[in-house]
Amino acid sequence: MSLAPARTTVGFIGTGVMGRSMAGHLQAAGYALRIYNRTRAKAEELLRRGAVWCDSPAAVAAASDVVVTIVGFPQDVSEIYLGEHGLVANARTGAILIDMTTSSPDLAGQIAAAAAARGVCALDAPVTGGDKGAREATLTILVGGDKAGFERVRPLLARMGRKIVHLGAAGAGQHAKLANQIAIAGTIQGVCEALAYAQRMGLDSVRLLDAIDSGAAGSWQLRNCGPKMLAGDFAPGFFVKHFVKDMRLALEASQRAGIELPALQLALERYARLAATSGGSELGTQGLFREYGEKA
Amino acid sequence: MSLAPARTTVGFIGTGVMGRSMAGHLQAAGYALRIYNRTRAKAEELLRRGAVWCDSPAAVAAASDVVVTIVGFPQDVSEIYLGEHGLVANARTGAILIDMTTSSPDLAGQIAAAAAARGVCALDAPVTGGDKGAREATLTILVGGDKAGFERVRPLLARMGRKIVHLGAAGAGQHAKLANQIAIAGTIQGVCEALAYAQRMGLDSVRLLDAIDSGAAGSWQLRNCGPKMLAGDFAPGFFVKHFVKDMRLALEASQRAGIELPALQLALERYARLAATSGGSELGTQGLFREYGEKA
Repeated sequence: MSLAPARTTVGFIGTGVMGRSMAGHLQAAGYALRIYNRTRAKAEELLRRGAVWCDSPAAVAAASDVVVTIVGFPQDVSEIYLGEHGLVANARTGAILIDMTTSSPDLAGQIAAAAAARGVCALDAPVTGGDKGAREATLTILVGGDKAGFERVRPLLARMGRKIVHLGAAGAGQHAKLANQIAIAGTIQGVCEALAYAQRMGLDSVRLLDAIDSGAAGSWQLRNCGPKMLAGDFAPGFFVKHFVKDMRLALEASQRAGIELPALQLALERYARLAATSGGSELGTQGLFREYGEKA
Repeated sequence: MSLAPARTTVGFIGTGVMGRSMAGHLQAAGYALRIYNRTRAKAEELLRRGAVWCDSPAAVAAASDVVVTIVGFPQDVSEIYLGEHGLVANARTGAILIDMTTSSPDLAGQIAAAAAARGVCALDAPVTGGDKGAREATLTILVGGDKAGFERVRPLLARMGRKIVHLGAAGAGQHAKLANQIAIAGTIQGVCEALAYAQRMGLDSVRLLDAIDSGAAGSWQLRNCGPKMLAGDFAPGFFVKHFVKDMRLALEASQRAGIELPALQLALERYARLAATSGGSELGTQGLFREYGEKA
């Protein structure tokens, strides 16, 4: 069965900052949308443009050929997929369920197995690129799960992202996303410490950033978060609270696998401390820089 | 007095992998060279092309308008500059001494003060860009010290590098270079841990690298060292032993200034452990990846 936009109903659950843009791209491409979200107000614009509201994940599942989810935390994913009124129990035979939340690799495996037992395909497909990538449909989408199912929804994913990469069996998309977050955890600490050092030593740090940006110390974090750190601009692009969640997932998975990742562990400790301060969890990840300024 | 190539004699001390290329660019530009190096054989090609050998730093100083040094460790710098037969005691009045070694910021300050007392200008001007940057004259040169002296030698420095940046008083070049190394220390740990995780989880890591390279996890280290880590290629671009030296300098300076840089400290501990293994100090910095593979 083809999943051409004009003949395909797509359920969409989670119309937050990311999801709203992503669903909008699907809608613009001609897919009929069925929507559920905890807060209905956040779906209003999509509904005005013709998306149909559903009162539960079960209702979304019953009406859709493909369901896309992007919500906050693994417990939300678990509830939406595995509950009695969840997607797996209520999906049509042959449906494809795609979770784009950054979530637990093990949970992704459980969902895929439960779905397969009902003749349903569940993929894990978390993204990188943030709200800007979601808005501009330039996300990188990291996919795990059944390859044939993936190939069927690849054109749909391509409406939301630019790089669509299949990395292995169920959970592989989540593992890839966590590897991405582990790299960020090390890099952003390096950027914070380099700039904290430079400021304390009285260097012209803006000039320094420009000087070292293209060399061996260069990184996306240095280029994008460095200037914000120096300006004291801690407004969220990517929230501390979400980064802490991701690092916890990564650390748990690594510990179960018996690998030590001390720089990740250090980053998690520092970010958890930041998150525990007033307003800390609502900062952008560059807010870690604040922690280096406080010690005299 | 102008420092035009045809009228300027440049002393050059330290014709290792970096220094040889850098001196070659000055020679090609028309500067007359006076050379001293611990191992004369490493200067042979420059001597064949017309550079003149000197038997000591003092002899170099006595014959030169400008002296450039790039040697191994701070104790070498101290000996070459501050010894009885060193550069400062034997430099011509009005000479400019430029240390391009990555060395101690405090030592740079001492040298500049001792030089100034004799009517000599000493700049600290460490570089980034490695042997490739030295060969292609695309180094970034981070300069501290007297601004007027810097402006006089800027055309000479521009023969060896592309970005020539003055960052402040004596020592500022060294501080800037150490800030650069601090950023690398965090970043390379993140890259190692991300790839160690991905490999253990059975992902196609080469594909993962390509997928995440352009996003928020992207860095020079990921792009350049990541593939080498995965291929088990630990041949030195930048030596572990030199990185350990740089991180020690950075940690000492930060501790004296009362800033805590825990990710730097962690990197130094791990690299020091690697350097203590057989052959470890002669590996390239990407060799840290080996440490993550060993724990089961």
